Amino acid sequence: MCAANQPPVSLLDQIDSPDDLQDLNLRQLEDLAEELRQRIIDSVEKVGGHLAPSLGVVELTLALHYVFDTPVDKIVWDVGHQTYAHKLLTGRRDRFDTLRQLGGISGFPKRSESPHDAFDTGHSSTSISAALGLAVGERLKKGPGKVVAVIGDGSFTAGMAFEGMNQAGDLDEDLIVVFNDNGMSIAPNVGALSKFMSRALSGKAYQTFRKSMERRLKALGSMGEDLLNIARRSEESFKAFYTPGMLFEALKFNYVGPIDGHNLERLIETLKYVKPLQGPQLVHVITTKGRGYAPAEANPSHYHGVGARPPRRDPAAPPPPQSYTEVFGQTMLELARRRPEVMAITAAMPEGTGLAPFAEEFPERFVDVGIAEQHAVTFAAGLAVQGFHPVVAIYSTFMQRAFDQIVHDVCLTNLPVVLALDRGGIVGEDGATHQGLLDLSFLRCVPNLSLMSPADENELRHMLYTALEHDGPVALRYPRGKGVGVAHDEPLRILPWGKGEMRRPGKDVALIGIGVGVEACAQAAESLAQEGVEAAVVNARFVKPLDEELICEVAHTCGRLVTVEENEANGGFGSAVLELLARRGLTGIKVRVVALNDTFVEHGSQAQLRHLYGVDAQAVAEAARRLLD
Amino acid sequence: MCAANQPPVSLLDQIDSPDDLQDLNLRQLEDLAEELRQRIIDSVEKVGGHLAPSLGVVELTLALHYVFDTPVDKIVWDVGHQTYAHKLLTGRRDRFDTLRQLGGISGFPKRSESPHDAFDTGHSSTSISAALGLAVGERLKKGPGKVVAVIGDGSFTAGMAFEGMNQAGDLDEDLIVVFNDNGMSIAPNVGALSKFMSRALSGKAYQTFRKSMERRLKALGSMGEDLLNIARRSEESFKAFYTPGMLFEALKFNYVGPIDGHNLERLIETLKYVKPLQGPQLVHVITTKGRGYAPAEANPSHYHGVGARPPRRDPAAPPPPQSYTEVFGQTMLELARRRPEVMAITAAMPEGTGLAPFAEEFPERFVDVGIAEQHAVTFAAGLAVQGFHPVVAIYSTFMQRAFDQIVHDVCLTNLPVVLALDRGGIVGEDGATHQGLLDLSFLRCVPNLSLMSPADENELRHMLYTALEHDGPVALRYPRGKGVGVAHDEPLRILPWGKGEMRRPGKDVALIGIGVGVEACAQAAESLAQEGVEAAVVNARFVKPLDEELICEVAHTCGRLVTVEENEANGGFGSAVLELLARRGLTGIKVRVVALNDTFVEHGSQAQLRHLYGVDAQAVAEAARRLLD
Repeated sequence: MCAANQPPVSLLDQIDSPDDLQDLNLRQLEDLAEELRQRIIDSVEKVGGHLAPSLGVVELTLALHYVFDTPVDKIVWDVGHQTYAHKLLTGRRDRFDTLRQLGGISGFPKRSESPHDAFDTGHSSTSISAALGLAVGERLKKGPGKVVAVIGDGSFTAGMAFEGMNQAGDLDEDLIVVFNDNGMSIAPNVGALSKFMSRALSGKAYQTFRKSMERRLKALGSMGEDLLNIARRSEESFKAFYTPGMLFEALKFNYVGPIDGHNLERLIETLKYVKPLQGPQLVHVITTKGRGYAPAEANPSHYHGVGARPPRRDPAAPPPPQSYTEVFGQTMLELARRRPEVMAITAAMPEGTGLAPFAEEFPERFVDVGIAEQHAVTFAAGLAVQGFHPVVAIYSTFMQRAFDQIVHDVCLTNLPVVLALDRGGIVGEDGATHQGLLDLSFLRCVPNLSLMSPADENELRHMLYTALEHDGPVALRYPRGKGVGVAHDEPLRILPWGKGEMRRPGKDVALIGIGVGVEACAQAAESLAQEGVEAAVVNARFVKPLDEELICEVAHTCGRLVTVEENEANGGFGSAVLELLARRGLTGIKVRVVALNDTFVEHGSQAQLRHLYGVDAQAVAEAARRLLD
Repeated sequence: MCAANQPPVSLLDQIDSPDDLQDLNLRQLEDLAEELRQRIIDSVEKVGGHLAPSLGVVELTLALHYVFDTPVDKIVWDVGHQTYAHKLLTGRRDRFDTLRQLGGISGFPKRSESPHDAFDTGHSSTSISAALGLAVGERLKKGPGKVVAVIGDGSFTAGMAFEGMNQAGDLDEDLIVVFNDNGMSIAPNVGALSKFMSRALSGKAYQTFRKSMERRLKALGSMGEDLLNIARRSEESFKAFYTPGMLFEALKFNYVGPIDGHNLERLIETLKYVKPLQGPQLVHVITTKGRGYAPAEANPSHYHGVGARPPRRDPAAPPPPQSYTEVFGQTMLELARRRPEVMAITAAMPEGTGLAPFAEEFPERFVDVGIAEQHAVTFAAGLAVQGFHPVVAIYSTFMQRAFDQIVHDVCLTNLPVVLALDRGGIVGEDGATHQGLLDLSFLRCVPNLSLMSPADENELRHMLYTALEHDGPVALRYPRGKGVGVAHDEPLRILPWGKGEMRRPGKDVALIGIGVGVEACAQAAESLAQEGVEAAVVNARFVKPLDEELICEVAHTCGRLVTVEENEANGGFGSAVLELLARRGLTGIKVRVVALNDTFVEHGSQAQLRHLYGVDAQAVAEAARRLLD
């Protein structure tokens, strides 16, 4: 009676390292799976995170850690957003509530966090390449470790995964690829391969195959007819060939599966079988994204990544500002209604980029290419050649994948493609792998490409319109999160090309901001005013072409400039201002660049990180004060 | 008798546009193929170019232009280095001798050159994505045009081609992909897929398949035995399934082939059959790279791209300097002999990067990943985690493909990987798609990455050694072509980290060069000296970390700086110097940045282009003079 009131003994609390799993029997491992699942749901409710992917691989994670001996064996988690159970089992249980918070553990694997994290991930489709490097290294070192890559079917859409598979098969290296097939990437999966896999599993592909075979056999005459008759009586024998495995076998992988990824016994048995095999192995595991949490199973796309539960709102308070993403999505709709040549392209992010309403209203003019940023950009270039005006909406951090295509396929021929870089600047809890802090630099060096960033969500509307009126490539970069709360002014208008905006006059120092930097400048000017300093505030709007006249004018008036951006200082917006002053021979102007100081930025809230890394209003005011000293 | 002495009537001279092909019969088309071949060989002997790829597709080009009606129909040539016959047939015959020369026609397709060039190419594996964009656009516009992508098997190694195929099959768009299979990329092909294709064609794959099938059939008991017996008597029926086609069919392409790519009749017949079909079609064509020119057929890798025939050398003259590429390759060997952890990775360029001798001596420590730059970099990161020190040698222009992997997989975790960027700066005749003019900018913004460039081929040796002694990522960028001819000093030594070198003292103006810029500075200083100007010359060596002390010192001494680099000015080396001066509060220093002025650079010789785009010694001297005025 008394025991019933005590909390049940937690198995999870006894797991300090994966070694401890060996003490559990199958039944206990199954119970542990449920504990892990509950723990993940509880934590993500509090701090936000990638819920559905982590829930889908709880049993797989347990089985992997039961069969393989990390860190001697090495597990590379593709993307890494599915590693919450892995983190809970590898000594990070007590810190799990600090997930994605400043100073806490990361939402992704990090070698600096645990020896059980074999490779840092965050972007999609790198795991096979990294694991192959680990495997070749292990062989050359004559080490005992086995190497496993765990990769989802969504990640397989990206060509990089194919590149890794193609070489792994060629090198005939001892490498185990666990193909975690949940029929989803972030959104429902796209691509012929994905459809083939589900057809193959459902038997539909077999139907197609059979028809083609019958046609061929009939053409052979009587021997073919004999064969056909036997084949008809023995369909299963043919079905067996036509599994998804044939594709992997062509790449010289030994195919094992498909197996139920929520059946621990089956998983353990299969991994034990595969572990000692030589050469490249592919284990096909079928899982359910969001498994065990009904709302996430029902809508895994929505529950892919979730924010912390928001605090209760005062019903009398004004509604919060719209996010930049929402405003972008609405403006795309508005412009598409007017202009039939506007098309929207996204890479597996119809919801994340705010394009879902566009996709619904203009299905013919919307293309989700899957996780394939390179293809997205060049595909858009093809559309532009045909007279369309595509807008390619991809997060800043993922646009890094398409750098060569931006240069080579869009800008070299000056094609009218708009690159919409959502999540430019500091993104917050997703941390170092997801910050958008390089785009102003890596895009500014590309000839023919114009580059702008709005100071608020209303300006984003006009900028998108302006970008679509421009006959050449434009990158439009805006931040993650809520706008500043300004009203929308109607109608949409074309902003003067290459012109910034004087937001506040001043004679002592000019604060020149781009994007979110403008708001920091405005706040800094307020505090400086209280100290008797008259700071001008300029909204640059354009990084390229720069408003040379306005900047030279304030340089002349004030003699002191503070440039403000959420980007690395190296080669960024401030650097463009310095280049301008040098080109114009304007010596004697004091300039301070407020930007990231050649460093990667960890996880935390956006506000915390802006303060910590010195790009908030306080840092701007401080830079101005130092110039004035 | 008289006619025999006249030159034979040239068919080629009668082809002013592809329409004219319709007037020829098959025999005449075959004769025209030989004329095209001879014309290409003659021209490339004179001006250099991509010989073997263009010779391989002469018949294919004729057949495509015979069957399809460009520019209404659209042909996208992957990479585009195989388009010489296409150029000869589409109104550029008379300008063909200007190929790759300043002001002449480009070695790649260019929309600005001809309406028959449907899309600009130059880098590998973009054709399917671009063609899919064209096809979707054509459908939405309700246009009559058919769209064809012509892609080699080498280009299929890159994931981007897979991304395009995967979506083309999914969208079920009317698109014809001609798969030009010559078993080569630039070097002999690598990758499991390539091996599979050749096994499949040779019947070896079928043997494997048969064994697996026999095993499965035997497991079915008597019905399986029956089936097996019939199968044995009718091997061809099974062979038919097991063509390379099955892979493409999985991606929902209709597979046609393989067909002999030098049989014009067969090609025309097949393309006519495929042209009206709906949905994605793959036509598998087998060609011989270098076809019709014995030396190129025997050694297609060597004859992939060739220079113009060099002028006869005076036997008494000193030998020409070694190329940077050769010096890099030799130094890699030297270092690998000493240090077992050094590994070399290249992306389909064992010859082009000078690594062939390394590959021969250390086959275990050399990996050619094929055309797969993304994979190359992340694979290297995996090796680095295992304690190896990989050097990834890729041309600057192709390293753009791996930008995200450099950031995310190498630099974020500060792994010791050396990125060797050959062909940094102006590359010459290959033109706009191949210039390496962005790397200093797009790499400088990446935290943790050090970035250096040698002033001469001897310094390259010491820099490579220095990079391999550094425990973190280093990019080492060096130019295409011959070194400056300096002697090698022994032994290899570690250069002081982040330190430049004062090469010539001076008090009036400081010329600060990086890489080839140093030589331009030295020459400029000579001419300035004759005008009585004492110009200091600094070899910066490092773009990052910059030698802050030395640069501030010469800024202090001279008050005037000219920075010199072969890179875009935006965010490049000069920009780094300006950032430094601002950070140090050094106002009043006059700076001029000699660099590319936000423009793409066309084809021509390196010397011509350096002069034309204002980055040669004369431009440096002129910049100094203007500062002194």
